[in-house]
Amino acid sequence: MDFSINTNKREEFIDITHEIEEEISIKNGLVNIFVPHATAAVTINENADPNLPKDINDFLNKLVKKGVWMHDKIDGNADAHIKASLIGSSVMVPVENGKMQLGTWQDIFLCEFDGPRKRKIIISFIGK
Amino acid sequence: MDFSINTNKREEFIDITHEIEEEISIKNGLVNIFVPHATAAVTINENADPNLPKDINDFLNKLVKKGVWMHDKIDGNADAHIKASLIGSSVMVPVENGKMQLGTWQDIFLCEFDGPRKRKIIISFIGK
Amino acid sequence: MDFSINTNKREEFIDITHEIEEEISIKNGLVNIFVPHATAAVTINENADPNLPKDINDFLNKLVKKGVWMHDKIDGNADAHIKASLIGSSVMVPVENGKMQLGTWQDIFLCEFDGPRKRKIIISFIGK
Repeated sequence: MDFSINTNKREEFIDITHEIEEEISIKNGLVNIFVPHATAAVTINENADPNLPKDINDFLNKLVKKGVWMHDKIDGNADAHIKASLIGSSVMVPVENGKMQLGTWQDIFLCEFDGPRKRKIIISFIGK
Repeated sequence: MDFSINTNKREEFIDITHEIEEEISIKNGLVNIFVPHATAAVTINENADPNLPKDINDFLNKLVKKGVWMHDKIDGNADAHIKASLIGSSVMVPVENGKMQLGTWQDIFLCEFDGPRKRKIIISFIGK
Repeated sequence: MDFSINTNKREEFIDITHEIEEEISIKNGLVNIFVPHATAAVTINENADPNLPKDINDFLNKLVKKGVWMHDKIDGNADAHIKASLIGSSVMVPVENGKMQLGTWQDIFLCEFDGPRKRKIIISFIGK
């Protein structure tokens, strides 16, 4: 199954843990969360302190320069593509008794690197 | 199943999307693409502009210095190993109706960081 | 299934390949290795030269500054969280005839970024 999210800024980490929790349709196995986009990503990290996802975003902005790459002559978003390959297009989470086995400090984030845009998230289940 | 690719340079991103598409043998599920190598990786990104994979490679070359690590005394390829851990050894892609659910701008790349070499790619299917 | 490991330092790469090998309970498929922690990660790389995992750790320490992030006002471990998102919370490895299809130079490491702590590793099997 899949769902869509409208992002609001060029760069933004959006917590999608609850959206995924509600869709868990297996008892035991794994869930894969995949973004079919080359300028967005998915990561697992803490959201108890809402400044932490901002720190990660800030780190990536400092790490990857804007406007200096060959692709910037075409699209102006090479930095977003580079960040997507660093963070990755999907995460896997084990499921037990119908519940994702995330740690206490783990949430799932859609990472927008070239928004605002409408982004699709594909959820796939392994197990039953 | 698996297949091999001969790379041509020390660092090179090779689009393997079509090779994988041809092997999709399930209707619905997921496909895992894994490289059994510690100085190569797999990533998903855009190939519509062939300069983009070159930009990602260029970014990684600027990020990871060559010849300054302890392992360089033995093998001279510590930078390739570090890049492999940053990008990752596998990707997962959802499959629907026998087709990978890649986005319009998503292609699958074998990332060579210590070539030229013969590299193996292992494809595993989940579902039927 | 899952098991725990006590780490010994703030930053440390611990080879968990043998622990996972002993648990392989399927003939063909995939194994997922997941850490339910936001300041640890899992990666696949070489351990034949024990200096290599130290080099990767050293690279990450140089890349991610300590004590300069907003989250550091609360926990002092923002660098550990950032590293966790760069390396990732899980890896997938194909299994054939009851054996992980790791390459000659591939080992599986638990990456501790904020130890010493007791860390849990969750192993999930796909296939039979």
